[in-house]
Amino acid sequence: MPACAWVNGSFVSGDEPCLGFRERGFLYGDGLFETVRVYQGKPFALKQHLARLREGCQVLKIPYPREEIEKGLQEVLGSGELQEGTLRITVTRGEAGRGLLPSSDTKPTVVISAHVGEPYSAEAYERGFRAVTVSFPRNQFSPLVSLKSLNFLENVLGRLEAAGCGADEGIFLNLKGEVAEGTISNLFLVFPGDLIVTPHLESGILPGITREIVIRLARERGFTVEEKAVFPEDFRRAQEAFLTNSLLEVMPLVAVDGREIDSGKPGCVAPLLRKAYQGYVFQSVAAGE
Amino acid sequence: MPACAWVNGSFVSGDEPCLGFRERGFLYGDGLFETVRVYQGKPFALKQHLARLREGCQVLKIPYPREEIEKGLQEVLGSGELQEGTLRITVTRGEAGRGLLPSSDTKPTVVISAHVGEPYSAEAYERGFRAVTVSFPRNQFSPLVSLKSLNFLENVLGRLEAAGCGADEGIFLNLKGEVAEGTISNLFLVFPGDLIVTPHLESGILPGITREIVIRLARERGFTVEEKAVFPEDFRRAQEAFLTNSLLEVMPLVAVDGREIDSGKPGCVAPLLRKAYQGYVFQSVAAGE
Repeated sequence: MPACAWVNGSFVSGDEPCLGFRERGFLYGDGLFETVRVYQGKPFALKQHLARLREGCQVLKIPYPREEIEKGLQEVLGSGELQEGTLRITVTRGEAGRGLLPSSDTKPTVVISAHVGEPYSAEAYERGFRAVTVSFPRNQFSPLVSLKSLNFLENVLGRLEAAGCGADEGIFLNLKGEVAEGTISNLFLVFPGDLIVTPHLESGILPGITREIVIRLARERGFTVEEKAVFPEDFRRAQEAFLTNSLLEVMPLVAVDGREIDSGKPGCVAPLLRKAYQGYVFQSVAAGE
Repeated sequence: MPACAWVNGSFVSGDEPCLGFRERGFLYGDGLFETVRVYQGKPFALKQHLARLREGCQVLKIPYPREEIEKGLQEVLGSGELQEGTLRITVTRGEAGRGLLPSSDTKPTVVISAHVGEPYSAEAYERGFRAVTVSFPRNQFSPLVSLKSLNFLENVLGRLEAAGCGADEGIFLNLKGEVAEGTISNLFLVFPGDLIVTPHLESGILPGITREIVIRLARERGFTVEEKAVFPEDFRRAQEAFLTNSLLEVMPLVAVDGREIDSGKPGCVAPLLRKAYQGYVFQSVAAGE
């Protein structure tokens, strides 16, 4: 199964043109997306992803195309070709004429693309991620900061900065100098006494679905999890750190800006929580949730 | 001539699919654009627009596709069908696989779309624009703030806010509370003593090409033009205000947040500078610049 997508009702391959030049997702990044991990042919936490997408559409005043999304998901998953992999669900305001102001009859575009394969290798988890601080701040006051919008260029630039330093991830500070999030991930720090700290939503972060699940799973396992302001110097005191998103699951973070966290090797909390996460995933998938 | 575009070497109509779903302009807003006014079949200030586009490509580390842009412009303008209207030149990083990090062999996408017709009516200039302050701030620290990138969703939201209040334009303040720019325009205030003030680049604005030209033309006509921090309360003291961009040229601004500027009618400086601008346009077009 090569990269393919369902676009407004039709299947297209990766090389096939399917979007017009008046598509507002292309013109202005006027849309949203969700990245959903598929395990054993089942999309995990789909309900939460679609709820976030629907809320985002409300903020952007895009009519939520529920039926099209449901139809597309059925058709993409129906063939059973995508067993282990990723779905990207993109919703935009649709095609329209010139100018920022959309006409009221603009019909949303729905693209659901499928990508086969485990997103990260076992080796990546053994090694852990190295991160650098991005050179420009996240604006925690932007309405976009809590949306997974198509305005993802700051994240692209942050990721390019990281790659330029040989790092795997870039970490944004917000305008107060607090640690916010990675370019593709939420961030957690582990301290002595089974304490886990993660930047609160006020830091200017995407409310990650994996973040929420990991917070709950950690609490169920006896950890104290605090959502609060995190500062760069907290990395020096941390025993361990890790990153989360739907594809990373729980990825050890072993260094920031060349400074190793504790021993510079993955700790034991991240693997423990990844195992708990995967247990929850397989339970949910088996239950058809 | 209905809406049509030159896309990577081919002409397409507005309804024709021409972009793939892996297009990074669509996935992440990973690209830039320029809006160029065409007068008498000639693109005005094209050199400046292309220079800004090239500089933006450098910031984003997108190889500048000079030859493709030149070829596209020749082909779009060659038919002579576009006499009075607008070109939008869009350059993106191109099509790529999953993930934020582009592969090094990604080939940029070039889209040049043509839109026939005068962008604004004579009536709009007689009436003037009414603006509202956008409810969220511009981050003057973002590297995107000085680029005309495809991450234009804050501008879309600002424009929607304005439309919701029956206004024509939304004005962004920056994080210091200074007046920055409109969602599609730069902003000028006129004070007694032939003084014109416009937010300086440090306010977090797009360095507008029309802005630059209008500053020069105003100085040539004896005005003192200061680029500096502008505050919302300055609107109360202003005799007159106006907005500039390539399509608006020089548009009177007659009210902000329901409060009229001076008499609430277009003043005399905006029409004077629009006339000077149009004189310069026709001189440049005649000279083939």
